[in-house]
Amino acid sequence: MVYTSRYPFFYVTVDIVILTIREDALAALVVQRGEEPFAGRWALPGGFVDPDEDLLEAAVRELREETAVATGDVRLEQLASFGAPGRDPRHRVVSVAWLAVLPHGPEPRAGSDAAGAEWKPVDFLLGEGRLAFDHAEILGEGVERARAKLEYTGLATEFVDDEFTVAELRRVYEVMWGHRLDPGNFHRKVTRTPGFLERVGRAVTRGPGRPAELFRFGGAEVLHPPLTRSTFG
Amino acid sequence: MVYTSRYPFFYVTVDIVILTIREDALAALVVQRGEEPFAGRWALPGGFVDPDEDLLEAAVRELREETAVATGDVRLEQLASFGAPGRDPRHRVVSVAWLAVLPHGPEPRAGSDAAGAEWKPVDFLLGEGRLAFDHAEILGEGVERARAKLEYTGLATEFVDDEFTVAELRRVYEVMWGHRLDPGNFHRKVTRTPGFLERVGRAVTRGPGRPAELFRFGGAEVLHPPLTRSTFG
Repeated sequence: MVYTSRYPFFYVTVDIVILTIREDALAALVVQRGEEPFAGRWALPGGFVDPDEDLLEAAVRELREETAVATGDVRLEQLASFGAPGRDPRHRVVSVAWLAVLPHGPEPRAGSDAAGAEWKPVDFLLGEGRLAFDHAEILGEGVERARAKLEYTGLATEFVDDEFTVAELRRVYEVMWGHRLDPGNFHRKVTRTPGFLERVGRAVTRGPGRPAELFRFGGAEVLHPPLTRSTFG
Repeated sequence: MVYTSRYPFFYVTVDIVILTIREDALAALVVQRGEEPFAGRWALPGGFVDPDEDLLEAAVRELREETAVATGDVRLEQLASFGAPGRDPRHRVVSVAWLAVLPHGPEPRAGSDAAGAEWKPVDFLLGEGRLAFDHAEILGEGVERARAKLEYTGLATEFVDDEFTVAELRRVYEVMWGHRLDPGNFHRKVTRTPGFLERVGRAVTRGPGRPAELFRFGGAEVLHPPLTRSTFG
């Protein structure tokens, strides 16, 4: 490989699909663009990779700048890179996209880059003409990755607090998969999946009814057997 | 996002982890570097993204230039991007890595870019100081992705011919997982996994013993239940 100037220069950015569940809907954090191209449209949080920065470092920095969360608690997973010619009308730009899941969608931190950031329902954002650049494609891939990972990993537990009830966990699956799940069947499945849930040893009363037992994530890297959509069909 | 020259320019390359099974070992296609840096070391096939080329197009072109296979039959899956500062001592280079699996490791095409390409066992290549740049990390991720996908997708069928015996398929799992599997148990599991295998309706005699039935991939997107390593434990 010879590096000469006959090869094009690129800008490299990171864009982050930050998902949460708010008001019983899957939502993503977005910022409204103030300038052309795509002025007025929504865009995923992101920005340029700095000269001495690794790709993950850049994603962590952007996440910190644009949300109120302590990034130490958040797992960033590389989603994919997007580099079609013309995806930015001005330059050749490759975006390395990342996926993060937050519990409850904390308010974006005022005074930061993200002063204009908002949580918007994913269904709204994926509507025609709402997102800038190819961000609808990136968001779509992020949502699909999260949906798939609910089946075979403990990702659902990242949408809830460290300690949660089975009903709260079920709500994550219901929102992500778009349909109700039988509570008894769900409870049996998740509490019998090795390494998925760990009993905290306390119960809470949330709303009417009996107190509900609290669980935390049991640390399993993969769920065996997986919690497939067809399992509950 | 404002694009100004205070952001660094990057070169963008594609590198391809091309895996096959040869002589009962997992092997990857590599080229020997003729010049510094890393002269004499092995490197994954790859190169610069052209000015008007999408990332996938670049990977398909490199695969075609460096192997003898008809790329129409090969699925290229994006693996991850690697962009640590200093991964190339000369420039800031982001590599978008791809994964491809080929049956039998066809001989690299003479006269092409890949005249010097060779199949080398993955265990050899992952040894200290064998691969240039961060290609050991990239290869390691490619192998891990392939190993994981054997469990829940039909990826194993890409290592064999379009029509194959269950023993040939078992050999793929044995090589990838590094241990023998009980033939009867394996046969039962794979033929009962919905959509994994489809009967061709013919049998072949390969070596001593009874003729073995031929199968082709049944097209399932995911294997339910998955063929986990622990399934055979």
